[in-house]
Amino acid sequence: MLFGFVILPFSFYYAVGLLLTKFSKGWLIVTLLEKTLTQVIPVNRELLPLIEAHLNNLIKPHGSLGRLEDIAARYCLICGNAAPQLGRKAVVCFAADHGVAAEGVSAYPANVTPQMVRGILNGDAAVSVLARHADVELLVVDTGVNDPMEGMAGLLRHKVAYGTRNMAQGPAMEIDEARRALEVGILMADEVYARGVRMVATGDMGIANTTAAAALCAAYLQCDPDKVTGRGTGIDETQRRHKLEVVRRALSVNSGSLDNPLTTLAALGGLEIAGICGLVLGAAARRMAVVVDGFISTASALAAVRLVPAAADYLFFGHQSHEQGHSVVLDALGAKPILNLGMRLGEGTGAVLAMQIIEAAVKTYLEMGTFDGVGVSLMLEK
Amino acid sequence: MLFGFVILPFSFYYAVGLLLTKFSKGWLIVTLLEKTLTQVIPVNRELLPLIEAHLNNLIKPHGSLGRLEDIAARYCLICGNAAPQLGRKAVVCFAADHGVAAEGVSAYPANVTPQMVRGILNGDAAVSVLARHADVELLVVDTGVNDPMEGMAGLLRHKVAYGTRNMAQGPAMEIDEARRALEVGILMADEVYARGVRMVATGDMGIANTTAAAALCAAYLQCDPDKVTGRGTGIDETQRRHKLEVVRRALSVNSGSLDNPLTTLAALGGLEIAGICGLVLGAAARRMAVVVDGFISTASALAAVRLVPAAADYLFFGHQSHEQGHSVVLDALGAKPILNLGMRLGEGTGAVLAMQIIEAAVKTYLEMGTFDGVGVSLMLEK
Repeated sequence: MLFGFVILPFSFYYAVGLLLTKFSKGWLIVTLLEKTLTQVIPVNRELLPLIEAHLNNLIKPHGSLGRLEDIAARYCLICGNAAPQLGRKAVVCFAADHGVAAEGVSAYPANVTPQMVRGILNGDAAVSVLARHADVELLVVDTGVNDPMEGMAGLLRHKVAYGTRNMAQGPAMEIDEARRALEVGILMADEVYARGVRMVATGDMGIANTTAAAALCAAYLQCDPDKVTGRGTGIDETQRRHKLEVVRRALSVNSGSLDNPLTTLAALGGLEIAGICGLVLGAAARRMAVVVDGFISTASALAAVRLVPAAADYLFFGHQSHEQGHSVVLDALGAKPILNLGMRLGEGTGAVLAMQIIEAAVKTYLEMGTFDGVGVSLMLEK
Repeated sequence: MLFGFVILPFSFYYAVGLLLTKFSKGWLIVTLLEKTLTQVIPVNRELLPLIEAHLNNLIKPHGSLGRLEDIAARYCLICGNAAPQLGRKAVVCFAADHGVAAEGVSAYPANVTPQMVRGILNGDAAVSVLARHADVELLVVDTGVNDPMEGMAGLLRHKVAYGTRNMAQGPAMEIDEARRALEVGILMADEVYARGVRMVATGDMGIANTTAAAALCAAYLQCDPDKVTGRGTGIDETQRRHKLEVVRRALSVNSGSLDNPLTTLAALGGLEIAGICGLVLGAAARRMAVVVDGFISTASALAAVRLVPAAADYLFFGHQSHEQGHSVVLDALGAKPILNLGMRLGEGTGAVLAMQIIEAAVKTYLEMGTFDGVGVSLMLEK
């Protein structure tokens, strides 16, 4: 019985392997995304009384640490543990270009995207400086920059396409492209998790991506695009009106694709937006805390929550961006950002700064003395 | 000529020294405070165009770092240098008791003050945890705890008195006591400066000190005490009304002393409040950045600004406290706090957290790449 199977030469297995590699890609991707969606489950709120008892046992007046207490409680719920551990921190910055840039919606030309990726990798960009400051590992992923990206040491190369198509003329991505970018994000979550990361921040780089994010948010929230179309990197009101007209055209041209979260993402999103969305899903599936950056990242997180509502349980919103529309989306998500510093840069800058506050909150929970002199781990044993 | 003076035996100089030590204390203190007040000079705003040119040269859209840019510019002005250096960070937490606690204005008994000082020194208090987190040196100074404070390793002993008197019955301090506490604060600024600290946070510990701070703010701002008398560590509305009545009594009893900033501080302040006020003045005299914590610290900073208005140039306001009245005082100072996390704990907790944001802001200014590829130091040489 044990030897009943036919023994085949090695070359047979090799050939099967090659065939699987060549033809199964789409199938594997479907599996990974859908498997991940099923793995995102709501946090267990039954832990809350235990967490609150510990917070009220810390040597301070009840509630006097304000939002730090809420943040610590949330972190416990995310970990599913009333005595959680802090791990390493990472920010994953996804870069991609947008076909809609051809409509003249941005203050900057599209070739700024690869230049800024180089700046981020060189350590010269704002997120590079802030990640060093906050002891956060920085990963830069190309999911769709319209450039071969030669000579960029350290870049994680997962290019799905050389940018999206112009959403004002049709869908920005094929469904399969969106799936592949989502999968890259999920794999990034897996990769950083394997390296001990337990809190991950989202970052974006892509000229014209506030236009895509505005269209995406207007579609998901079914709101007037005027509310979520802002000045991005610094256009004036006349340019913003033009941008708004482009967003309206994109919504109109793609109106047939906006009936489910994934086709909406493909029609109006971007390859970095889908990457961030995948990162959010992958991190939530792993029970990692996700710190969402500004407007682009929040639009991506909104897509994740539309794909699986339980993803919301794993999100911290790092900061309130100056970008018009961010507060609209935050309100829709019932989210209260941690910082409000008038930043509007993206790259993950606001999220990285907020990570220090979250870490501080968890440390007060874990390290402060208690009125009964009993630490959190002993409390759990009682 | 050179040898024309009379040579006296050593014992003569020794006797003179002893007499000076015994009788000159008040005089020396007057000198230190007044010397410090003259050393606090406005920052040189002529540096601003150079600072702004550098900010606009950084590889990011103009103004996209929001308040981080304002914070960096402010730090440069404080240092008087468009290419400033970051130094070490310290938080100085002053502890003292208040005679007015006898009126039953606090949710906690006065003997909590020494207990919490012990907690801070042991590393168990919120500020201890946050200072470790943010790499901030923590100094704890007794300027007036009503306890001998035995067996408290690490405590800096500069007790001026065993607490203040009850301000509802007369002045809380003699003028000389207030001066001595101010001097302790100035000396603390000098001490941390000598150790390489260039940014100092203020902290407080003292049962009933929101009552003193409320009276002080009402006097300085000449506003209705109702606006600045809040719930402190957690009293209810009935208790707050009683506290308000006590504040009104203190203002009435001491109405003859409220005609200048120093006598007001002595009549209504506290020994930790005067210590913080001195720290602010000493730090401003040394051109150190001061990060002011919540309501108590802001009342102390208000006293400093009333003593010498230029002190305001050196202040960052770390956070918006949940304590009623904090926003009133912040508005009066034209101050916009960095964080707003609903904290109301004191100890320096909010200021320590904000230090990480300030440091981050200065690092983006110093470390980001520029469009012309020229760093800040080279820019200054151009």
